[in-house]
Amino acid sequence: MNNNAKVPVGVLGASGYVGQELLRLLARHPGTAVAFATADTAAGEWVEGHQLLQADDAPLERAAIVLSALPHGVSARYVNEARAAGKRAVDLSADFRLSAEAVYGLTEFSRPRLAQAELVANPGCYPTAALIALIPLAQRGLIDPSREVVIDAASGVTGAGRHPQRELLFGEVAEDYRAYAVGNTHRHLPELRAALERESGFAGDLVFTPHLLPVKRGILETIHVPLTGALDQGAAEGIYEAAYRGEPCVQVVRGALPSLKDVVYRNRVALGVAPVEHVRRPRLTVIAAIDNLVKGAAGQAVQNLNVMLGLPETLGLVC
Amino acid sequence: MNNNAKVPVGVLGASGYVGQELLRLLARHPGTAVAFATADTAAGEWVEGHQLLQADDAPLERAAIVLSALPHGVSARYVNEARAAGKRAVDLSADFRLSAEAVYGLTEFSRPRLAQAELVANPGCYPTAALIALIPLAQRGLIDPSREVVIDAASGVTGAGRHPQRELLFGEVAEDYRAYAVGNTHRHLPELRAALERESGFAGDLVFTPHLLPVKRGILETIHVPLTGALDQGAAEGIYEAAYRGEPCVQVVRGALPSLKDVVYRNRVALGVAPVEHVRRPRLTVIAAIDNLVKGAAGQAVQNLNVMLGLPETLGLVC
Amino acid sequence: MNNNAKVPVGVLGASGYVGQELLRLLARHPGTAVAFATADTAAGEWVEGHQLLQADDAPLERAAIVLSALPHGVSARYVNEARAAGKRAVDLSADFRLSAEAVYGLTEFSRPRLAQAELVANPGCYPTAALIALIPLAQRGLIDPSREVVIDAASGVTGAGRHPQRELLFGEVAEDYRAYAVGNTHRHLPELRAALERESGFAGDLVFTPHLLPVKRGILETIHVPLTGALDQGAAEGIYEAAYRGEPCVQVVRGALPSLKDVVYRNRVALGVAPVEHVRRPRLTVIAAIDNLVKGAAGQAVQNLNVMLGLPETLGLVC
Amino acid sequence: MNNNAKVPVGVLGASGYVGQELLRLLARHPGTAVAFATADTAAGEWVEGHQLLQADDAPLERAAIVLSALPHGVSARYVNEARAAGKRAVDLSADFRLSAEAVYGLTEFSRPRLAQAELVANPGCYPTAALIALIPLAQRGLIDPSREVVIDAASGVTGAGRHPQRELLFGEVAEDYRAYAVGNTHRHLPELRAALERESGFAGDLVFTPHLLPVKRGILETIHVPLTGALDQGAAEGIYEAAYRGEPCVQVVRGALPSLKDVVYRNRVALGVAPVEHVRRPRLTVIAAIDNLVKGAAGQAVQNLNVMLGLPETLGLVC
Repeated sequence: MNNNAKVPVGVLGASGYVGQELLRLLARHPGTAVAFATADTAAGEWVEGHQLLQADDAPLERAAIVLSALPHGVSARYVNEARAAGKRAVDLSADFRLSAEAVYGLTEFSRPRLAQAELVANPGCYPTAALIALIPLAQRGLIDPSREVVIDAASGVTGAGRHPQRELLFGEVAEDYRAYAVGNTHRHLPELRAALERESGFAGDLVFTPHLLPVKRGILETIHVPLTGALDQGAAEGIYEAAYRGEPCVQVVRGALPSLKDVVYRNRVALGVAPVEHVRRPRLTVIAAIDNLVKGAAGQAVQNLNVMLGLPETLGLVC
Repeated sequence: MNNNAKVPVGVLGASGYVGQELLRLLARHPGTAVAFATADTAAGEWVEGHQLLQADDAPLERAAIVLSALPHGVSARYVNEARAAGKRAVDLSADFRLSAEAVYGLTEFSRPRLAQAELVANPGCYPTAALIALIPLAQRGLIDPSREVVIDAASGVTGAGRHPQRELLFGEVAEDYRAYAVGNTHRHLPELRAALERESGFAGDLVFTPHLLPVKRGILETIHVPLTGALDQGAAEGIYEAAYRGEPCVQVVRGALPSLKDVVYRNRVALGVAPVEHVRRPRLTVIAAIDNLVKGAAGQAVQNLNVMLGLPETLGLVC
Repeated sequence: MNNNAKVPVGVLGASGYVGQELLRLLARHPGTAVAFATADTAAGEWVEGHQLLQADDAPLERAAIVLSALPHGVSARYVNEARAAGKRAVDLSADFRLSAEAVYGLTEFSRPRLAQAELVANPGCYPTAALIALIPLAQRGLIDPSREVVIDAASGVTGAGRHPQRELLFGEVAEDYRAYAVGNTHRHLPELRAALERESGFAGDLVFTPHLLPVKRGILETIHVPLTGALDQGAAEGIYEAAYRGEPCVQVVRGALPSLKDVVYRNRVALGVAPVEHVRRPRLTVIAAIDNLVKGAAGQAVQNLNVMLGLPETLGLVC
Repeated sequence: MNNNAKVPVGVLGASGYVGQELLRLLARHPGTAVAFATADTAAGEWVEGHQLLQADDAPLERAAIVLSALPHGVSARYVNEARAAGKRAVDLSADFRLSAEAVYGLTEFSRPRLAQAELVANPGCYPTAALIALIPLAQRGLIDPSREVVIDAASGVTGAGRHPQRELLFGEVAEDYRAYAVGNTHRHLPELRAALERESGFAGDLVFTPHLLPVKRGILETIHVPLTGALDQGAAEGIYEAAYRGEPCVQVVRGALPSLKDVVYRNRVALGVAPVEHVRRPRLTVIAAIDNLVKGAAGQAVQNLNVMLGLPETLGLVC
């Protein structure tokens, strides 16, 4: 593929952890070329061979498609500008995830719409893992809606962004571990509920509790599912294998449970299951792991970009 | 207090993380003196000023009381020998925790029995945090027994011992995070259920899932409690404050949630609560944090020792 | 010792890592009571049972002695105010370390002057370890002044302070390691040279290179010493043992080398040596380890305070 | 390139950190296919899609070339067997590094010999970084042979292998830092001296001190070079830029210093320099960083393989 055939891509917000990961992935992507990259606080600096511009100076005309890793609340304005200039866009912020004008880009469940999409809302990192774990069970009516689904999620610190804050200093985070947004107050919960109901019709209660891990990247979710009927380990694994047969970026781990090291630096969701013993009613524990910066953000954006452009879905990605 | 007045204490199993912590605490304890310390694999080495002996060479006659940090399955034999020699004992292994012959040493709920006890079974690290969190709610009939209590616990690696294993190497654990003993298969669960029912009569279902954190020490438990009736944050905090008024080693964090850094190197359980929004039936999330080596093992053993000996309960401890 | 007999101590700058460590140590110190603690950016917060005040509101009249952990450049003003109010002071910043009006508080070499001192300049963390390692060799004329002494020092991040900066975020520091202030440009070098020459007359060249370690606390210095004559390991160890016989806070490790875990949370310098093989001229490598927040800052300040007040030198400290 | 055109490669010793990295790199390498992979202690397990065999069962006939990541002392026997079977080989152990029968594979200085080599000894991780830093200075006569070159090197734990040892447990390594093989006793020193003299004629004294970092991967070397004449920063940078112009895997960082995060997961040596102030005779400090598993082992082996096979030198690598 010669350079002229490469699709020019503009990147908005390239100095944060997600933006840097985007540039890193695009640098290895054979079907696209970075047309420009912006970062207001780091304008003038070089990242992966590109000198960062002010967002307001972005030469939109040079790009066929724009990826935005700008912060929530800021991104919408620039994405709308790009669309007004006739560009397709993938927005990695939360700004369009609950909006009807965007296609929700959980790739495995959105392919037909992605191919034609003008605007894609890339899912949040926590919802990506939870949805891949819950949709197959919910679609098959296996989740007991009278009991709550409890999701305990733990994320590496790059999920909290790169803006200097005391509570994210190494001296505070190392050797520590804590819960935050406890009591169903995290911004990702409405996104998760909406997407789960849209894909499966399930509208039971969820309890979502995120935690901050002393690692750089990776999310592990421990998902406690009340079942409508007993499932042994093989049956549960079989359900996921059937649901994700042929999916290049979903891995069902048989007879073991995934950990962060199975997924970091990969565009993969890894799933494992264990039935729960010593309880009166049937339950399943599902473990889902992703790299928050890859399948949870920049990698899934590239996966969506590939579908939008008619390229092989995993081009430039390691799943 | 002159040296002659100090109570001579023997330590069995002093080369593991718990045994080392015991020697470290006893070195700062003004009411006791270490009479001997054993460690079969490290015999001859010096720790905190004591040369380690073979367990079979322990001069039991020199000690008034024996603390055992030997491994599960090994400890019982040596503790029984010490008792046969007329010595009081605190066993930090799991060997006597389900046995009627030992007093279960969750100090805050066992004081009257500890004062006279000949044999104390020191609680496991995970049950210590969970019991301090659940007993007050269960005693007051606040936990809905028709829904499961879900406990997600994360522990630093010293909880897994100091025996060389590939899966505990720095190269495997750093930047990783994983669940283990998923599906209610952890050894601590029967201990937790038995103690909870004994103290409160509660016999509802528990789902307990431990995780391995890339930190050296500390346990954080995220405890999802289905309630019989709604509790707001102040009411829930008030229940814990009433339950633990005057307790030197239980801290109720008001308006915030504890993290590992609040408890490491301290003999403390820290508790915080958050009511759960956006669910149909009332729920409370309780966060409990301890240092697995201190309140979860060696520190609680010293706390129990102090009660057994009629010394001030926190002598030599930082709560 | 009843509370009335305790010496009232004021703490300036209690919200940084050094200030917090000071309050932690003073909370366990039986001979002093904290009269007040200040922290402009955290005024109103509670730390170790003390509500932080604005520095300008410090009730100096309540303290007999003032400890300042204020930043370099800010500390001198407040310390001078305290002295104008007739208070003795220990300044933990760099502001008085090169000044003749203060006693340089490297305790092991300053005791007679400390007892009478009105103002003590507490040494920097890097110089403390280097001086304890180099002074005995330099005093005995063992360092070849025609070749450079090379000091490679690595410090945990609490040495860089608690002010939010991107380069100190967990996401930047974890899994990283880097040198800084390379080429003899670190502020501690003039302090180190001056104190070394004052104590030993040695004025040869030093090359000092600090590094940032992904740990919370601890400094390890690898000190490459060109010798005037060969020393085997036993002879080198013997020199240090003779120099520091009876010193409670200097530990000479025989036949091994210290690492951070030997010193963290302790007010100790640990030293170990190795002669260098396969070189034409004699050389010795000395390893010196300290906890940057304890012997490198707050602990040495308390050690100095004890000497100033005529208390036992290690009162309240674990060496 | 279709599969039939891919060169079949055999991998010996695929369960350690280096062997796993080899399989990871080969999985993304478009010019080769893994013919077999062995690992005695993990035979039967699957890594990157290959089921590991016993080394004695390796079907040598299926491979055109063999890469060995077996341990030192074990590797030579199996490499010799492969050569007896007519196979070319790259040995990543130390077994052939001082032997005349192998080409020493520091790629940047060995290309003409590599193209024809039957046996390549892949350099050690520490020597790779040190040689890339020192050879250009030594070749130009800039290093003063009358004063020692002092090299302080710090490595992540994967450099110490994956065999379970207590001193490599997370509980021992986290929050710790230590020197080892102090006093010029490390196995890599003779290799470094021999290669440096062979490439540059320099035979002055070296002092090499390795340290163990609490990170998974990466080596940073702080190299203290006594100069025959003064060099300012620009001149020193210019020397390296001239020496490595056009080299894809050597990066000269201008006006800054490299850290581990610049090199991990890349097949790159990053170099930065700082002249030393406040010393009587000219000195330069050079910082060299590599990923010990990539340019320090598996990546350089693939780089050498590419040269041996006439493929583009960085095929399958990210430099």
